[in-house]
Amino acid sequence: MTKKAPRRTAERIQEAALALFNRYGEPNVSTNQIAAELGISPGNLHYHHPSKDGLVNRLFDQYTATLAELLPAAAGVRDAEDAWFFVHSLIERIWGHRFLYRDLNLLLSRNRHLEAGMRRVLLAQTGALRQQLTSLQRHGALVLPDEEADALATRQIVLLSYWLSYEYALDPRHALEPEGLESAVLRGAAQALGLLLPYLVPAQQELLRHLLRAYAKQHAPGKPGVPHE
Amino acid sequence: MTKKAPRRTAERIQEAALALFNRYGEPNVSTNQIAAELGISPGNLHYHHPSKDGLVNRLFDQYTATLAELLPAAAGVRDAEDAWFFVHSLIERIWGHRFLYRDLNLLLSRNRHLEAGMRRVLLAQTGALRQQLTSLQRHGALVLPDEEADALATRQIVLLSYWLSYEYALDPRHALEPEGLESAVLRGAAQALGLLLPYLVPAQQELLRHLLRAYAKQHAPGKPGVPHE
Repeated sequence: MTKKAPRRTAERIQEAALALFNRYGEPNVSTNQIAAELGISPGNLHYHHPSKDGLVNRLFDQYTATLAELLPAAAGVRDAEDAWFFVHSLIERIWGHRFLYRDLNLLLSRNRHLEAGMRRVLLAQTGALRQQLTSLQRHGALVLPDEEADALATRQIVLLSYWLSYEYALDPRHALEPEGLESAVLRGAAQALGLLLPYLVPAQQELLRHLLRAYAKQHAPGKPGVPHE
Repeated sequence: MTKKAPRRTAERIQEAALALFNRYGEPNVSTNQIAAELGISPGNLHYHHPSKDGLVNRLFDQYTATLAELLPAAAGVRDAEDAWFFVHSLIERIWGHRFLYRDLNLLLSRNRHLEAGMRRVLLAQTGALRQQLTSLQRHGALVLPDEEADALATRQIVLLSYWLSYEYALDPRHALEPEGLESAVLRGAAQALGLLLPYLVPAQQELLRHLLRAYAKQHAPGKPGVPHE
């Protein structure tokens, strides 16, 4: 089935596990299924990754590494277009490891590494979105009462973290299939970015509306926030 | 342990199941544990509720019945105070059946009754929140471009639906314990209500800020959106 690549087996296992977890949900995928997908024996898989939790933890560490690369960019966001790119980059990384969010509460109740790690991830992401607001304000793109900035950054991270779960809840059979997923990701980013609209200065508001409309035409079956039938 | 009440056994089972599911998560509770909690035999429980999925479905129907009572009130919301009450009533009902949201994606992947039902619930809730916006606008409390109303109602339902999951992810060991839960519920309501702030007319904005401050003093360890350490 899967072509044998020159990569190391441990990496191939990680990659296959990520794809299967993302597609079917971590609780619905066994290590035997991962081995079958790769055409290797369960014993071989066990040799490289002795436990499923260990595999989940490696994928989680991979996720935090991609975030560590991205989050510092928040401090350099100057206008609506920069914000557009930053938020899209963030939700794409969330999307890349969406199994972590799909069954998050269950994973957290079973895994201590994730328990401490996910808290750090959420706080780091919220901190970066908060920095983005400060930076937009410093560049004259945004006017926001300081006491509302924390709440706004928090709303953004809740929307970004749970948007795919929401789309899945509306349409479990199609929402996370590869062909619909790109639109779902873009709708999530649009919802998080739309939170900025009332606080942007007029020219930046216009710019963001323009970017959101351009995306909506290209990708959405309806307008953002209206699930398709 | 549990006092024997004159209620019918089937109802007592439902009530105990709801409490255990809410506390530990549905995937972590077996029907045998529910029977043990009530001091009845597994066979007796099985006689009244032949499957755990059937029990989940009964609790889901109970949830939709409480929503059907509440949602029509959205059309009568005239000002920030009415909105405050409506949103609190809504998140309290979500809280009452929070196990449905805690492991929603997993439940949806296994249960067809929930799959169709949850979609209806989310659309009905979003519709009600949309009606609330229309009603606030009709009463001169809110000014909102029509093309942004759907997106705003959607953001509100995503925040209300996933707020408890977010608090749980930040602090799995304490967030959903009874003593912290009331504050968590109030923070979620505050986040959803805060979305209205930039669109309310000044007097209503002042009223909502006042209500949110009054709650924050009474309940929150920090300000809304800032998780406590």
